[in-house]
Amino acid sequence: MTDVLSHIDGVPGFKVAGVHAGLKDDVALDFALIVSDSPCTVAGVFTTNQVKSAHVLVDMERLQKKRTGYRAVAVNTKCANACTGQQGIDNALQMARWVAEKVGCAEDEVLVMSTGVIGTQLPMDKIKRGIELASEKLDAGQDAWKRTAEAIMTTDTRPKLASLKSEDSYTIAGIAKGAGMIAPNMATMLGLVVTDAALPEADILPALQKASDRSFNCISVDGDTSTNDTVLLLSTGKVAATDIDAPLEAVCRSLAQGVVRDGEGASKFITIQVFGAESDATAKAIANTIAISPLVKTAFYGGDANWGRIMMAAGRAGVALDPKNVKLWVAGGEVERRELLLFSDGMPTDYSEERATAIMHEPSIYVTLDCGQGKGHAVVWTCDLSHDYVSINGHYRS
Amino acid sequence: MTDVLSHIDGVPGFKVAGVHAGLKDDVALDFALIVSDSPCTVAGVFTTNQVKSAHVLVDMERLQKKRTGYRAVAVNTKCANACTGQQGIDNALQMARWVAEKVGCAEDEVLVMSTGVIGTQLPMDKIKRGIELASEKLDAGQDAWKRTAEAIMTTDTRPKLASLKSEDSYTIAGIAKGAGMIAPNMATMLGLVVTDAALPEADILPALQKASDRSFNCISVDGDTSTNDTVLLLSTGKVAATDIDAPLEAVCRSLAQGVVRDGEGASKFITIQVFGAESDATAKAIANTIAISPLVKTAFYGGDANWGRIMMAAGRAGVALDPKNVKLWVAGGEVERRELLLFSDGMPTDYSEERATAIMHEPSIYVTLDCGQGKGHAVVWTCDLSHDYVSINGHYRS
Repeated sequence: MTDVLSHIDGVPGFKVAGVHAGLKDDVALDFALIVSDSPCTVAGVFTTNQVKSAHVLVDMERLQKKRTGYRAVAVNTKCANACTGQQGIDNALQMARWVAEKVGCAEDEVLVMSTGVIGTQLPMDKIKRGIELASEKLDAGQDAWKRTAEAIMTTDTRPKLASLKSEDSYTIAGIAKGAGMIAPNMATMLGLVVTDAALPEADILPALQKASDRSFNCISVDGDTSTNDTVLLLSTGKVAATDIDAPLEAVCRSLAQGVVRDGEGASKFITIQVFGAESDATAKAIANTIAISPLVKTAFYGGDANWGRIMMAAGRAGVALDPKNVKLWVAGGEVERRELLLFSDGMPTDYSEERATAIMHEPSIYVTLDCGQGKGHAVVWTCDLSHDYVSINGHYRS
Repeated sequence: MTDVLSHIDGVPGFKVAGVHAGLKDDVALDFALIVSDSPCTVAGVFTTNQVKSAHVLVDMERLQKKRTGYRAVAVNTKCANACTGQQGIDNALQMARWVAEKVGCAEDEVLVMSTGVIGTQLPMDKIKRGIELASEKLDAGQDAWKRTAEAIMTTDTRPKLASLKSEDSYTIAGIAKGAGMIAPNMATMLGLVVTDAALPEADILPALQKASDRSFNCISVDGDTSTNDTVLLLSTGKVAATDIDAPLEAVCRSLAQGVVRDGEGASKFITIQVFGAESDATAKAIANTIAISPLVKTAFYGGDANWGRIMMAAGRAGVALDPKNVKLWVAGGEVERRELLLFSDGMPTDYSEERATAIMHEPSIYVTLDCGQGKGHAVVWTCDLSHDYVSINGHYRS
């Protein structure tokens, strides 16, 4: 498998555009359009939140009816179009209809995504302007992809792009946004992955689900789950491909980790690996609880080797855990490594406090927890909780 | 029922002391001793965390063996005595033994509580000094109770005391600590309630459980659950009493709300009332999820009427919720009031943004969410998430 790049040189069959439609008050890009020359097979995974955006509801309904024939995806920022009732549904349908007119396809061959404030109606004049502007700027090149990735950003500080060219000469490429409201179980973000590799209708959803479970569903910023989470995978099916799972997962993982690295106010990238749990699900519950614990996250922020909080969080995950069997290591970096054993046999080891503090001050930290109970395993990526997270979210709408 | 006071004038039969044993680096009070003249009937409720302090394990074992005959409770700060293995158990037993020697009772008539850093062993020389100093200062008066409440504080900014004198002329009084690591399901705190009212052995635990469910289990600061949560209720049984439930709940609620008001970095007191849910448990899940959502809490901190986040949190509580049936109100204050309807019939109402913002800037905010599905009801008290929370917890150990 070739390396994952953090830019997109183009994907055969796709044209994209990111424009300023006036949704954001400044001049920033705020509306994106992705168009395929030919009908695509599509899979989507969506938020598990009971309160779903009208955009999500429209996409879910369309993809339940059919998984083939899609030509375009439009994305608006600044307005989540959630908690907006029937008018929100009507607006989402109208947005798709306008896109269909410009692209020259049927309205049910268009999907929509949105992100922004919950509880306000879409400003339809700006949406219309965005569609008009974007449809004139569609382009297949690297700069157009970068602008498109920028146009779906909210509190993100940088665009997230990933691409991979396989030896079979197909391309998989994706963009993502999401900096807060990032939690496991549908990664509270928008992601769009496109490929010219053939992914038959029967295979595309399982492929996306599997890749998501090992990427977008393994990240956490604050434990909150948005009303709008959507990841779409579009395949033109032009290039015969074998074993696309690993490349697809690699692209999704690169995007997911990019989201954590750019977590709101994040200053550290933290990997939580749990093994020896009774099951993979149990391991994930423990890893997630550590990852969303405000006390753990603030200790990472402060560079305080207060590892007792990791044990506290592991213990409150709602699953059985016997501290006597637990081992806990920390190391610097992003590669699995068990450098410093902090806790074993129910009590602290004779570790070097100086070394523990030094590790806690590294930009990337690798935490390994062995439950000593079974064979369950999970990895979760997260970031710390900083003053900036509070600043960003205390005044998000203003 | 008479009013709950926020001081303790004394409880017949009890003497207390708060002293500086040297556990804290400065001169602050850091060790507390509570002694009864006569044997007490005792109930305890403890953390649900799988990683439990040795103090908690010792108390749980003692109370499983017998609920009567207890004479003293000792509390140390700065060291949680959790993740400390067999040495931690031995130290907890030794601490109780020293107390028993000073009080003149059997060692299994003493209970212990602790709070502080996880993963360090108790400094036994300081524990011994604390017991010696405190046993010399035991006193029944108001000042002794205040010093005792101060001596169990960690990041608390003020002591929490509550007392009530009934018409039957019995007294119920309690002290509590806890400012972070406050979550529902055993309120992640230390609480000690004493009374001279008769509470038979068969009734005392159900009475404490019921009162805790409506007080300590209804508060949340950060969703984290400590290894050390303990609430003990001691009764000398000297005064015949009828229907002690309401007074006991009132004292516990006053202490629990005091904990939230003094939440780490808290600037606002927020009541979340959920009704119309399918069950009380469902209502509590929704209320808790709103109360621990970092995005909701930071919006309260910023005074931003971003109520869509409340809907988002309600939707991710893991229980069924149909937004079309939901109504959401906010009001200022701590008394149930449905002033400003923000969301109804699946969409925002035509509310005054100016009024909503004014409410969000009040020191106390009352949120009411009607699920429109059934008769389940719950109330949770919480606070906002501020810069100070991050500062306090980023450098807790230093």
